[in-house]
Amino acid sequence: MKRTHTCGILTENSIDETVRLTGWVNSRRDLGGVIFIDIRDREGVTQLVINPENNAELDDACRPIREEWVISATGVVRPRPQDMINHNIKTGAIEVAVTELHVDNSCKPMPYHFNDSQVSEDLRLKYRYLEMRRTNLGHHLRLRHKISKVLRDYFDRQGFIEVETPILSKSTPEGARDYLVPSRVFPGKFFALPQAPQQYKQILMVGGVERYFQIARCFRDEDLRADRQPEFTQVDIEMSFVEQDDLFEIVEGLFVDVMRAVKDIEISTPFPRLTYKEAMSRFGSDKPDTRFEMHLCDLSGVLNGSEFKVFENALSAGGVVMAINARGTAEIASRKKLDAWTDTVKLMDAHGLVWVKIDEHNEIKSPAKKFLSESELNAIISAVNAQTGDVILIVADQFSVATQALGRLRLEIAHSQNLIPENQYNFLWVHDFPLFDHDSENDSYIPIHHPFTSPREDDIELLSTDPGSARAQAYDVVLNGVEVGGGSIRIHDAALQKRIFDLLNISDADAGALFGHLLEALSFGAPPHGGLALGFDRLVMLLTGASSIRDVIAFPKTTRSSCLLTDSPSCVDAAQLDELKIDIRPGTEM
Amino acid sequence: MKRTHTCGILTENSIDETVRLTGWVNSRRDLGGVIFIDIRDREGVTQLVINPENNAELDDACRPIREEWVISATGVVRPRPQDMINHNIKTGAIEVAVTELHVDNSCKPMPYHFNDSQVSEDLRLKYRYLEMRRTNLGHHLRLRHKISKVLRDYFDRQGFIEVETPILSKSTPEGARDYLVPSRVFPGKFFALPQAPQQYKQILMVGGVERYFQIARCFRDEDLRADRQPEFTQVDIEMSFVEQDDLFEIVEGLFVDVMRAVKDIEISTPFPRLTYKEAMSRFGSDKPDTRFEMHLCDLSGVLNGSEFKVFENALSAGGVVMAINARGTAEIASRKKLDAWTDTVKLMDAHGLVWVKIDEHNEIKSPAKKFLSESELNAIISAVNAQTGDVILIVADQFSVATQALGRLRLEIAHSQNLIPENQYNFLWVHDFPLFDHDSENDSYIPIHHPFTSPREDDIELLSTDPGSARAQAYDVVLNGVEVGGGSIRIHDAALQKRIFDLLNISDADAGALFGHLLEALSFGAPPHGGLALGFDRLVMLLTGASSIRDVIAFPKTTRSSCLLTDSPSCVDAAQLDELKIDIRPGTEM
Repeated sequence: MKRTHTCGILTENSIDETVRLTGWVNSRRDLGGVIFIDIRDREGVTQLVINPENNAELDDACRPIREEWVISATGVVRPRPQDMINHNIKTGAIEVAVTELHVDNSCKPMPYHFNDSQVSEDLRLKYRYLEMRRTNLGHHLRLRHKISKVLRDYFDRQGFIEVETPILSKSTPEGARDYLVPSRVFPGKFFALPQAPQQYKQILMVGGVERYFQIARCFRDEDLRADRQPEFTQVDIEMSFVEQDDLFEIVEGLFVDVMRAVKDIEISTPFPRLTYKEAMSRFGSDKPDTRFEMHLCDLSGVLNGSEFKVFENALSAGGVVMAINARGTAEIASRKKLDAWTDTVKLMDAHGLVWVKIDEHNEIKSPAKKFLSESELNAIISAVNAQTGDVILIVADQFSVATQALGRLRLEIAHSQNLIPENQYNFLWVHDFPLFDHDSENDSYIPIHHPFTSPREDDIELLSTDPGSARAQAYDVVLNGVEVGGGSIRIHDAALQKRIFDLLNISDADAGALFGHLLEALSFGAPPHGGLALGFDRLVMLLTGASSIRDVIAFPKTTRSSCLLTDSPSCVDAAQLDELKIDIRPGTEM
Repeated sequence: MKRTHTCGILTENSIDETVRLTGWVNSRRDLGGVIFIDIRDREGVTQLVINPENNAELDDACRPIREEWVISATGVVRPRPQDMINHNIKTGAIEVAVTELHVDNSCKPMPYHFNDSQVSEDLRLKYRYLEMRRTNLGHHLRLRHKISKVLRDYFDRQGFIEVETPILSKSTPEGARDYLVPSRVFPGKFFALPQAPQQYKQILMVGGVERYFQIARCFRDEDLRADRQPEFTQVDIEMSFVEQDDLFEIVEGLFVDVMRAVKDIEISTPFPRLTYKEAMSRFGSDKPDTRFEMHLCDLSGVLNGSEFKVFENALSAGGVVMAINARGTAEIASRKKLDAWTDTVKLMDAHGLVWVKIDEHNEIKSPAKKFLSESELNAIISAVNAQTGDVILIVADQFSVATQALGRLRLEIAHSQNLIPENQYNFLWVHDFPLFDHDSENDSYIPIHHPFTSPREDDIELLSTDPGSARAQAYDVVLNGVEVGGGSIRIHDAALQKRIFDLLNISDADAGALFGHLLEALSFGAPPHGGLALGFDRLVMLLTGASSIRDVIAFPKTTRSSCLLTDSPSCVDAAQLDELKIDIRPGTEM
């Protein structure tokens, strides 16, 4: 007899039906000769009741059964006694009186307790399959599937086609380090695993695909920060004949669908749009969390002419004086706390932190009080709208240092003061990023986004006069202070692309060797195009509430890029290396 | 002004509307001062009419435009003159009288003519993006997307979840050659790209996922036969708590959806099911094409005791005498043709071919006529139901040689005689494959499917007595004589798995090193499970009617596993190899 129901579905509607369930033994209790087994499958848990008395076969089958064995049970559905009803689960009002039981597989004793927070993550990675059965990892994987389904349905409806781009790809050492794959047919040559399908998707646009997407695997051989993976998944999008606004609209519609399907929340569009400059000025971050206020306030104007050295020096060096108002923190802003906040801004390269506290007696306290005129003090208080119990935190420095320091402090205070509402999802766009960073050491420019990013049309002239101040047609989409994606309008003109390579000190020879195929493609009727990539793992993490991207990936690697389940990477046969004509460097430890 | 319509949509319903089209110049004709441009995008072609007289701006914009330039045109829709209507395209009744024209990009002259069959495939691979725009490759990619969408919708509806398994995987040298990826963090160790997610999907079953699928990239570093790719895509399926029939049903439902969506054809289910033995006996193939008859016929019974040495020798050595009836081929079966057919069976290791022709005068001709009694001849003719104009083709040999030789000949004759109806889609299952092949040279067994395949339960005893005759719970799904997928019920019992490894001469140490993680997982409550993989590229090829899998892949590799578009594999910097602590073997040519 085959499985008739899952373990999560039977209710009082099935009383007296004969059913067959299969699954894992979630728990076993022996009470006065009667055995209670909770049987579990993907859908839920059902209580089996086994009375082995007068049934030798059942008795035999039952006896050895332990936690996590795989069993099949046939029986009759009956109501539970009133005092045994479990209102927390759908099947809580019934139980199945077992008439026949079959053991499909045994199971070794569990290697650890799943809810023991002391268990190392290494052990959990080794027994990944047990985690899937016993923790919420299984639920995360189902939600991940659901999100990818919603994405694909949306893109399909919008006329996008999913195109699979190669994994055996070309090494182009821009950005991160490539994973290499030795070629056997061309000894001494290598493929690389793609860091992103960037060039392929641009070539698809030249190929007239017009609307491309892919849920694509990407690879970076980096020393991993805590929450990165050597292989990760990105939602890759590219469109032809579009401008920035068209891409914004497509992505906004996508998130409307995702939030509706996953969270049953209607988010409103269009998303707020901040220029990079605005984001930095108001939030001290290019990925602002707008779920709480505490905006940055520029005091440079009202403090112009101040004789307080800290402010005077910053302003006369072309810097700024910026502040945030940490509302209601006067009580907790002890000397120790203020020192900690000062450490935070120093970590962000600021010289120091000036604080102004309005205590419960409405008295103004500040180490800078004696250096500031009363009108200056009042101007500061009025600018940030400070009241009794508030603490004003001021950084005087170069614009980027002052804003980033206060942006960091703003987040720190918001977290510690619980200012961030849960279950709120604030999406926004940051755009008009600078095109280049200037590397003063080598006096060279580095692309902020990547070298295929188009400058704003009204800034193209700046490429000749002041490349550092040219703005890019680049944008990020931000959710709750986390960058979930970014992209740009690309250069579709081969001559402009070459000009950018020149500014980046990429020689013609290098450009040809690395990007020749793209430059060639651009000269064969490339349409205007642009795109975006979303970090899929991170998005799933935010939507599941998981605390690490490892918790939303079926088989993640450790922070040392190894797999503890399969024990890879591993040694290989000498014959394999012979065929590839490569050698492990002598003296290399294995 | 933004694009208002695609180039494939305007009809007489839009007469007098002002529209904006963008796309590529498909063709340009100058007729008496008036310029006709067919503008093309992904959706179709629309005729633009430009009268530059009295419009200097339009004149300037127009003059340089050539084939495949990218343009945007604003104009008014108007009916074409009656004698200019093109009934072959949706937009054939209208044209757009252009008022404004903008060149978005120029295009170098085309490097070759797209419908020139003499153009080498190498050139077409280099200019892949032009092929996408100008040939039916673009259409194939859209259909590929559609098929993958139908697959995913189906699996989702059936409760499957798509799980992404790792690409940076473990080298397990069973089957084909692995692509290796050197680890930088663990110098001297390697990842391998997966040949299939086989072990991961079994572990997902142990993890309680129950219904898994993935459209998965797989890799094999093989010397490529004409129509293979080093990276390819398979539709990967695994289910728990199922038997063979459950999997058949799921896959049959999948093909119903696919054929309906792609071909608008209702196929009937269940598919015919043939055991391996039946398939070989009737069709001489484990992937029979049943779109035409010409079944194999076993003459061993009626020829038992024949004195004709050819038959006698085969039968006394435990072999068979098999025949097919090539109906109506007597006229074309010249000496030369019969020699060619004989060559075919010899290629398949048969000793020779005996033919019996019934010519138009009903006269029986055969080189074997003098060795056969009249009753034997009549028995042969009657067994294959031969009539005037037929040719009976007979092979006497061991069962596998005779059947495969005639199977090959059957296909060859069917193709040359045009016996195969077009637009017919015959699906079927072949099951009950042998578990092992016997390698007589090393007196060892080799798994026909893979070492995780379960034997039939009623054949488990044979593992001790006669492993070579044990049948596997393995099956292939066949479409029109092409194997489009295959799979098996897996071993879920660690002890049985170990027994199979023993029979395959895989030592405990090797099994532990290569498959230890899977054996360990099986001992932690593995449910009964099984699965299947479909060759996605091949399936798309069959459904698009493309003649090569390269024609349904956006960026395929050559038969030498190189990419002519990006020129990869390529040389890499010495610094990259330094970091990986590997060396290219001295003397290796690059």
